[in-house]
Amino acid sequence: MRIGELSRRTGVSVPTIKFYVREGLLPAGELTSPNQASYGEAHVQRLRLIRALLDVGGLSVASIREVIVAVDDPGRSVHKLLGTVAGGLVPSYGREPGDGIEEARKQVAALIASRGWRANPGSPAAEALAVALAALGEAGHGAFSQVLDAYADAAEAVARADLGYVAHNVAREQLVESVVVGTVVGDAIFSALRRLAQTDASDRMFGEAT
Amino acid sequence: MRIGELSRRTGVSVPTIKFYVREGLLPAGELTSPNQASYGEAHVQRLRLIRALLDVGGLSVASIREVIVAVDDPGRSVHKLLGTVAGGLVPSYGREPGDGIEEARKQVAALIASRGWRANPGSPAAEALAVALAALGEAGHGAFSQVLDAYADAAEAVARADLGYVAHNVAREQLVESVVVGTVVGDAIFSALRRLAQTDASDRMFGEAT
Repeated sequence: MRIGELSRRTGVSVPTIKFYVREGLLPAGELTSPNQASYGEAHVQRLRLIRALLDVGGLSVASIREVIVAVDDPGRSVHKLLGTVAGGLVPSYGREPGDGIEEARKQVAALIASRGWRANPGSPAAEALAVALAALGEAGHGAFSQVLDAYADAAEAVARADLGYVAHNVAREQLVESVVVGTVVGDAIFSALRRLAQTDASDRMFGEAT
Repeated sequence: MRIGELSRRTGVSVPTIKFYVREGLLPAGELTSPNQASYGEAHVQRLRLIRALLDVGGLSVASIREVIVAVDDPGRSVHKLLGTVAGGLVPSYGREPGDGIEEARKQVAALIASRGWRANPGSPAAEALAVALAALGEAGHGAFSQVLDAYADAAEAVARADLGYVAHNVAREQLVESVVVGTVVGDAIFSALRRLAQTDASDRMFGEAT
């Protein structure tokens, strides 16, 4: 199909499609004449993935590029690939860690050990957790970490569901796309569900009685 | 204390403190002379809250202002207040909903009903969930919604832990601050924990065997 139809099919404007090609997010179309290129279903699928990562996941173009390069590299084992993807998807807060960061890192390492998780205490996700816990402490809410085990239980249940979904997608590209979309959009879904469940819990606790 | 000491105590620069006062996020200090103001512990606490919302939660200054106005308004009941806060904390994706949004809204309303949640299907959190589910469908991952119940179970467990923590903070301002920090930072914490648990699950599934 021509670029105009690709644009109609995906709802992405022609200049934006050209921008994604220049930025290396989308493969160029096949040249059918010096001024015209032809695009296929793979372009449709890839554009939808980019939009989901960008609009729902809120990832930067640079982060999306990193994830896509990993998806397209056949030399990486599936587990290494998923590790790269997970690392690229960790939100970075652009925050300078404060005084509590060393203590928080120890807390994270202890949590990983106590749960028997096969995860590296130096990974981006572990560091993101330490930064968030340190920020809690600085905001005077260090006691919130008492509920950490309830969070970890829930995270294990969600991760089992995630991987169960992923395991149904046997082709490599589909597998990774599932992880990418599931991880990024899954955050948005869980965050929204948590607020709905909080509304319910708050109504039961503070609603009619007060 | 003077503004210089407030800056040292909190790690927030003097121009930034003045910006927060101008923007209505932080009450002005008490004037002790025409050119000098005095600040107290309430300013320290409020600055830490602002930084946690900004740096860890990634909220805009406008969203932070909305949350702070709600915290400071004694006319709102606790449940109404928590509702305002939860609404302000829902991430907005700046995305135009696509064709699948109506179907997704029905799915969300059905989920709320089937779980017996006392939550409004028209609330910002419900809409955020519908947008995320619609985006999943557009990216060709509509089947991911099969795991929605596992997510909802986990969200209920986390919300119970959240409200349990909150209930320990009896003073009104503290209560709301707990909800704000717990909700925003809790998202970051859960997101990081989920990635760690995924690493573990992925290693067990794809690690040594492949």
